[in-house]
Amino acid sequence: MPKLWSETIEAHRRGVREAILDTTAALAAEYGLLSVTMSQIAEQTGIGRATLYKYFPDVESIVRAWHERQVGHHLHHLAEVRDRAREAGERLEAVLEAYALIHQRRGQHQRHHRHGAELATFVHRDEHVSQAEQQVLDMIQGLLAEASEAGDVRDDVPLEELARYCLHALAAASGLLSEAAARRLVEVVLAGLHPTVDSTDQQAAHDRDPQ
Amino acid sequence: MPKLWSETIEAHRRGVREAILDTTAALAAEYGLLSVTMSQIAEQTGIGRATLYKYFPDVESIVRAWHERQVGHHLHHLAEVRDRAREAGERLEAVLEAYALIHQRRGQHQRHHRHGAELATFVHRDEHVSQAEQQVLDMIQGLLAEASEAGDVRDDVPLEELARYCLHALAAASGLLSEAAARRLVEVVLAGLHPTVDSTDQQAAHDRDPQ
Repeated sequence: MPKLWSETIEAHRRGVREAILDTTAALAAEYGLLSVTMSQIAEQTGIGRATLYKYFPDVESIVRAWHERQVGHHLHHLAEVRDRAREAGERLEAVLEAYALIHQRRGQHQRHHRHGAELATFVHRDEHVSQAEQQVLDMIQGLLAEASEAGDVRDDVPLEELARYCLHALAAASGLLSEAAARRLVEVVLAGLHPTVDSTDQQAAHDRDPQ
Repeated sequence: MPKLWSETIEAHRRGVREAILDTTAALAAEYGLLSVTMSQIAEQTGIGRATLYKYFPDVESIVRAWHERQVGHHLHHLAEVRDRAREAGERLEAVLEAYALIHQRRGQHQRHHRHGAELATFVHRDEHVSQAEQQVLDMIQGLLAEASEAGDVRDDVPLEELARYCLHALAAASGLLSEAAARRLVEVVLAGLHPTVDSTDQQAAHDRDPQ
């Protein structure tokens, strides 16, 4: 039964890979990312160094894989939340709230570990946005486009810029101590997105005098 | 003239320290933070390894010192901008814009270096906010308090949370390609801060029916 055997091997490999990611995240959270070595990771995972190198060439690539996995989980959760709501405005609000709560809970978790945030911040770079992060950005932009058609979103700023604004602003939830505070943050972010009397006035003024 | 001599030594020490910070930032931007060693830093700075260890115990502490220096420069710039404007609303807007532009320019710079963002993101952790970052947060909160007294800021969210919202949201400017886009971002952030008709309605509805 060669097929079953290869499936078993595949499952085993996935299991080892997951264990490597979990071990690395735990070591980094406890001792700090800069002090984690490949030898430590192999030992704590319970595999040989040579085996570890068959999976990953260095600590940095493990950290990246860990991050991709995290964002993948979040993406899945956000898609579920999105698909539960019907109306465009509701969908946008529900996803933004879910995103804020992910950050709020992560922040809470990280405050319990001396080096808890290093892993996340190390890989969190605007210019090398991972594929999964780009998908989150695309999802938000899509929801903004829907809500925009319903007239719920200001039209004086490109949707891609508004999507970036949402993601960055909501990440402030990682420093908030309660879910209630995270929900207040969502209200503030949404207020920034709405077409405001102010912006309409400014737009009208700008149309009259394009100086 | 012992005093002059000690001043000379002090100036020399400051110069070496500055050079160490500059070298480390350049090495990290070029090769990646995880690959930079104390030996490399000493060599590139043109000092001995033993001398380097008299200044800093490890790479991480150099990175922290570099970051403190950067935020210190920014703080100085923001204070200047603040003191040039008169009216509370203007001061808030001017400082938020200056903060957005710092990020926009930094992002631009970082896109030119493979590892340009690592240094900044590595030290950028909510739970271990540095003293200088706390000062930026305090400055924004102070400006919000001023603007709040003038009735320009919503009163349904604590000012500290609004200050965090500002800093996080404006950091989105690091992914924006133009200063015009950074200025649009400031408009969006300000719209989130204003007392909105929406939030007044919601507050009134909530007061009527506190379910």
